[in-house]
Amino acid sequence: MAEYPTSLGTSDADHITLLGQDLAEDLMGKVGFGELVLWMVTQRRPTQSEVRVFESVLVALADHGFTPTAIAARLTYLSAPDSLQGAIAAGLLGGGSRFLGVTEDCGQYLAAVLAEAGEIPADDAGFDALALDAVQQARAAKKFVPGIGHPVHKVRDPRTPRLIEIATEEGVRGPHLRLFEAIGRVHPQVLGRTLPLNGAGVCGAVLADLGLPLAMLRGFALLARTGGLLGQLAEEQRNPIANDIYMHVDRNATYVVPKSE
Amino acid sequence: MAEYPTSLGTSDADHITLLGQDLAEDLMGKVGFGELVLWMVTQRRPTQSEVRVFESVLVALADHGFTPTAIAARLTYLSAPDSLQGAIAAGLLGGGSRFLGVTEDCGQYLAAVLAEAGEIPADDAGFDALALDAVQQARAAKKFVPGIGHPVHKVRDPRTPRLIEIATEEGVRGPHLRLFEAIGRVHPQVLGRTLPLNGAGVCGAVLADLGLPLAMLRGFALLARTGGLLGQLAEEQRNPIANDIYMHVDRNATYVVPKSE
Amino acid sequence: MAEYPTSLGTSDADHITLLGQDLAEDLMGKVGFGELVLWMVTQRRPTQSEVRVFESVLVALADHGFTPTAIAARLTYLSAPDSLQGAIAAGLLGGGSRFLGVTEDCGQYLAAVLAEAGEIPADDAGFDALALDAVQQARAAKKFVPGIGHPVHKVRDPRTPRLIEIATEEGVRGPHLRLFEAIGRVHPQVLGRTLPLNGAGVCGAVLADLGLPLAMLRGFALLARTGGLLGQLAEEQRNPIANDIYMHVDRNATYVVPKSE
Amino acid sequence: MAEYPTSLGTSDADHITLLGQDLAEDLMGKVGFGELVLWMVTQRRPTQSEVRVFESVLVALADHGFTPTAIAARLTYLSAPDSLQGAIAAGLLGGGSRFLGVTEDCGQYLAAVLAEAGEIPADDAGFDALALDAVQQARAAKKFVPGIGHPVHKVRDPRTPRLIEIATEEGVRGPHLRLFEAIGRVHPQVLGRTLPLNGAGVCGAVLADLGLPLAMLRGFALLARTGGLLGQLAEEQRNPIANDIYMHVDRNATYVVPKSE
Repeated sequence: MAEYPTSLGTSDADHITLLGQDLAEDLMGKVGFGELVLWMVTQRRPTQSEVRVFESVLVALADHGFTPTAIAARLTYLSAPDSLQGAIAAGLLGGGSRFLGVTEDCGQYLAAVLAEAGEIPADDAGFDALALDAVQQARAAKKFVPGIGHPVHKVRDPRTPRLIEIATEEGVRGPHLRLFEAIGRVHPQVLGRTLPLNGAGVCGAVLADLGLPLAMLRGFALLARTGGLLGQLAEEQRNPIANDIYMHVDRNATYVVPKSE
Repeated sequence: MAEYPTSLGTSDADHITLLGQDLAEDLMGKVGFGELVLWMVTQRRPTQSEVRVFESVLVALADHGFTPTAIAARLTYLSAPDSLQGAIAAGLLGGGSRFLGVTEDCGQYLAAVLAEAGEIPADDAGFDALALDAVQQARAAKKFVPGIGHPVHKVRDPRTPRLIEIATEEGVRGPHLRLFEAIGRVHPQVLGRTLPLNGAGVCGAVLADLGLPLAMLRGFALLARTGGLLGQLAEEQRNPIANDIYMHVDRNATYVVPKSE
Repeated sequence: MAEYPTSLGTSDADHITLLGQDLAEDLMGKVGFGELVLWMVTQRRPTQSEVRVFESVLVALADHGFTPTAIAARLTYLSAPDSLQGAIAAGLLGGGSRFLGVTEDCGQYLAAVLAEAGEIPADDAGFDALALDAVQQARAAKKFVPGIGHPVHKVRDPRTPRLIEIATEEGVRGPHLRLFEAIGRVHPQVLGRTLPLNGAGVCGAVLADLGLPLAMLRGFALLARTGGLLGQLAEEQRNPIANDIYMHVDRNATYVVPKSE
Repeated sequence: MAEYPTSLGTSDADHITLLGQDLAEDLMGKVGFGELVLWMVTQRRPTQSEVRVFESVLVALADHGFTPTAIAARLTYLSAPDSLQGAIAAGLLGGGSRFLGVTEDCGQYLAAVLAEAGEIPADDAGFDALALDAVQQARAAKKFVPGIGHPVHKVRDPRTPRLIEIATEEGVRGPHLRLFEAIGRVHPQVLGRTLPLNGAGVCGAVLADLGLPLAMLRGFALLARTGGLLGQLAEEQRNPIANDIYMHVDRNATYVVPKSE
C-alpha cells in the first residue's frame, strides 16, 4: 500500500492544517510569510531574530535592476502576456551557477571548510588560520573562493557590512559568517590583491548560520527573486520596455557567413 | 539613443538603490520581504496594516499539500537534482487557470462588476443588490462565478472568514471584499444551492482591495507558492517520495491498443 | 486498483515498445523523427506526403532570428550555463498568445468556421462566400481574424505560397487551407485594405488539414522552436552575444522617480 | 555601436533567410526537420547518412512511457491547460543529470578519454587498451563510467546494438562509438560484473561522432523529448490520467509529526 508521508499541508472538509497548525486560526494573521517559509523548510518555528535576519537576506537579493533574468522575464511576458507564470518561471530559470548560484556555493564552501576542520575555532585568530589554509588550498587547486569579488562593487559591496551588522544585532552571527569575514581579512596575502566580500556570498554565510539545509540555499535566492520579478513585471505592465529591447537587438543583427563555408 | 526607464533597482560602484532607497541602509533590516514586494509592485510604501493583510494572503496560499504542482516540482527535482531552479519553475508552471488562477479571476471579476456599476454601493443592501444582479447575469450567460465552491471544503473554507476578520481588524475591508461577501449571501437564491466562498477567491478580493494591479494578482499566488515549494522540496530532500510516485505510475501502466488501429 | 492506460511507450527487461512497435527493430532507422511525432500524436502512421508537409511546417517555424524568445533563451543560458534545459524551457515559455500562438489560433478559427457552416463548400466560390461571412462577423464583433497581417512582411509572407504549393503537390490541401486562402481573397472588401496571409497562420491551416488535434497545434510550433533554440544556443556557445545585450540594457537604464511620489 | 552577429535567421519585407538560404525556396519541402536542426547547430549541411543516424537517436530518445518528466508535464497540463508551453517546459526541466543527462555525460566522457590519449587507436585492440585504462582510472577515483548499466534493461538495452548497426551501415561509426563498445568489452574485468551499454550512452557516443558540440548533446535529448511530450500531452487530452495520479497521491498522504518536535 502506497503511503506518502508529509509534515506540511493537509486538509479535510472543515480544516486546513499546515505544519500541524490550524492554517486559519494559528497561522494566518499571526505568522509572517518569511517566518512561515523558514518554518516549512526547517520544521521548527523560528525566533523573531532569525526571521529578521532571513528577511534581510530576501530584501538584499530581491532585485538588482536589469539583470539577465529580469530581462528574460520581461521578454517572455512580451511574447506570452497570457501566462504570467511562464514569465516568472523564465526569470527564475536563470538562477543558476553564474549569477544567482553564489549564495549556495558560498554557504556550501564555508560548511565544507568547517566540516573538514572538525571543530569550530575558538576566536578570530583561529578563524583567520582556518581561512588562510582554505584560501591557500583553493589557490593551489586553481579554484575560485566563492563569495569574493564583484563586477561592479570592486571595493566594497554595501550589503556585506550591513548584513553582518544585522546578524550581530540579532545574535545569530555564527561560524559560517565568522569564517567568511576571516576570508575577507586573509585572502589578500594569498591572492596578492584585495577583493570585496560580495552580497550573494554573505547571504550564503548567514543562511548557513541559520541552520538551513545547504542544498536549499539557492532556493532562498530564488524566492527573493520571485518577489523582485513581480516588481519587474508590474513595471513592464505600467511602462513596457521589452519591445524596445527586442527592436534594438533585431535592428542591430548582422548576418555573418558561417566559418565552415 | 535607447533608454530603459526603471523605478526599481540601480547600482554603481559604491551604492545599491532600490525604489530610490539605499538598499543596505534604508531597506535591509528595516523593511520586511512582504513589505518590499508590495512597495515594488505598487511604487508606494505600504502601511503595516496592508502588510499584515498581504502576508496573511501569502500564508493562506503558500502550501496545500500534495497538489499537482507540488508533485510536479518533486518529480522534476528527482530527475534533475542539479537544478533546483528547474524544479521550482516546474512547480510554478502549473499556476494556471485551473488551480491557482482563481485568485486573479475572482479579483478581476469583482473589479469588473464594480466598474460596470459605476459607483460603490453605500451599504450591504446595495452590495446585495449588485451581487444579485451579477450572479444572475453570470447564470444567464452560463458562466461560473469565480471564487465560489471548493472540491474539498464543500460547506465552508476556513480561510475565508479568517481573512475577512483580519482585513476588518486592519481597516482594509473594501468594496471588492464586501461585494464578494454579498455574493456569498445572495447566490443561493439564484443557483438553488449554497456554495462556500473559497480561499483563493477571498484572497483575490482582498488583494484587489489593497489596490494591487489586477493583471498581477496571479503573481502573488505564485510568490506564495514559491515559498510553499521550498517547503516541499526541502521535505523531498529529507524524506523523498517522488520516486515512489514514479514507480507507482510506472507499475500500473497498461498498454492499450490505439483506437484507430 | 489504479491503472494508467497508455498507447505510447512501455518496456520490460528485454524490450522497449513505442506505439505497439519494437522501438529498436521497427522504428529506429526506419521512421524519421517528424514521422514518429505525427504517429504519437495521431496514433496513426502518417503517409510520406503527410510527413513532408508536416516537416515543411516545422522548417518554416524553426527559427526567426533574434525573436524575444531566442533572446530570452540566450540570456538564461548566460546566467545558468549549467542548465541547458532551463535555457530551452525559458525560450519556449514565450510561446504564448502574441508571437507563437497564431498557428493554433488560426487553426482553431478555421475549424470553428467550418464547424459552424456544417458542410464543406463544394468549390472556391463556396469558400469565398463562407470566408466573407466569417470576416464580416469578426469585424462586427471587433475581433481580429487570426493569420492575416505581419509586422515585417507587409505585402507577402514568402512561406505562405510555398506551403500551399507543397500541400497541393502532396495532395493534402484540405478545407482549412482552402478557407484560409479564401480569407486572403475576400478580406480586402471587408477591411478596406489588403493584408498578407502570414506564415504562422498558413501553418495552422495545414496542421488542421493533417487532422492534428486543434488543442495541440501550438505544440508543433513549440517543437519547431525547440530545434531553432538549439541552433541559437549553439551559436551563443560559439559566439556569445547575451552579455552584450545585458550590458546594453544595463548601461542605458535610467532611474525614474515613481509617479506616486 | 552594438552589433549582434548571427548566421541563423534574418528577414526583410520580402525575404526570410535561414543559414544563408532562402527559407521558402531552398529549405521548405526540400530539407527535413532533423536535417535543418543538424545544419543550424553545426553550420554545415549534413549528409543523408548523418541525418539518418541523427534521427535514429531522436527516435530512440523520444519517449519512455511514464517517466517522471512525462508525469510532471501531464500534471502541469492538468493545472494549467491554458498554457501548453508551460506543460512542455515543465517536462523538459526534468532533463537534468539523473535521467536525461547521460547522453551528454557519456559523449563528454568519451571525448575526454580520447583527448587525453592524444591519438585515436588504430584498431580494436588499441581501443580495448584505452578503455581498460579509462575504466580502471574511473574505478580508482570512485567515479561511475557514464553510459553503462540500466535499472530495467539489466542485461541488454535493445537500442544499443541497433544504433551501432545503423551507424555502421551509414559509415559514421567513429572513435567515440568504438571506444564505447570497447568499454562494453573490457569493463567486466575491472568491475567484476557485466553491465549493459545503455541507450542514452550509445546516443551520446554517436552524437559525438557526428561532430556535434559536446556542450549541446543534452539539447538533442531535449529535442527528442519535446516530440515525446507532444505524444504524452495529446494522450492526456484524449484520455486523461493526471487527475487520477493526483488523487492517488492525495489520498495516500499521511501526516507525520516533524522529527524536531
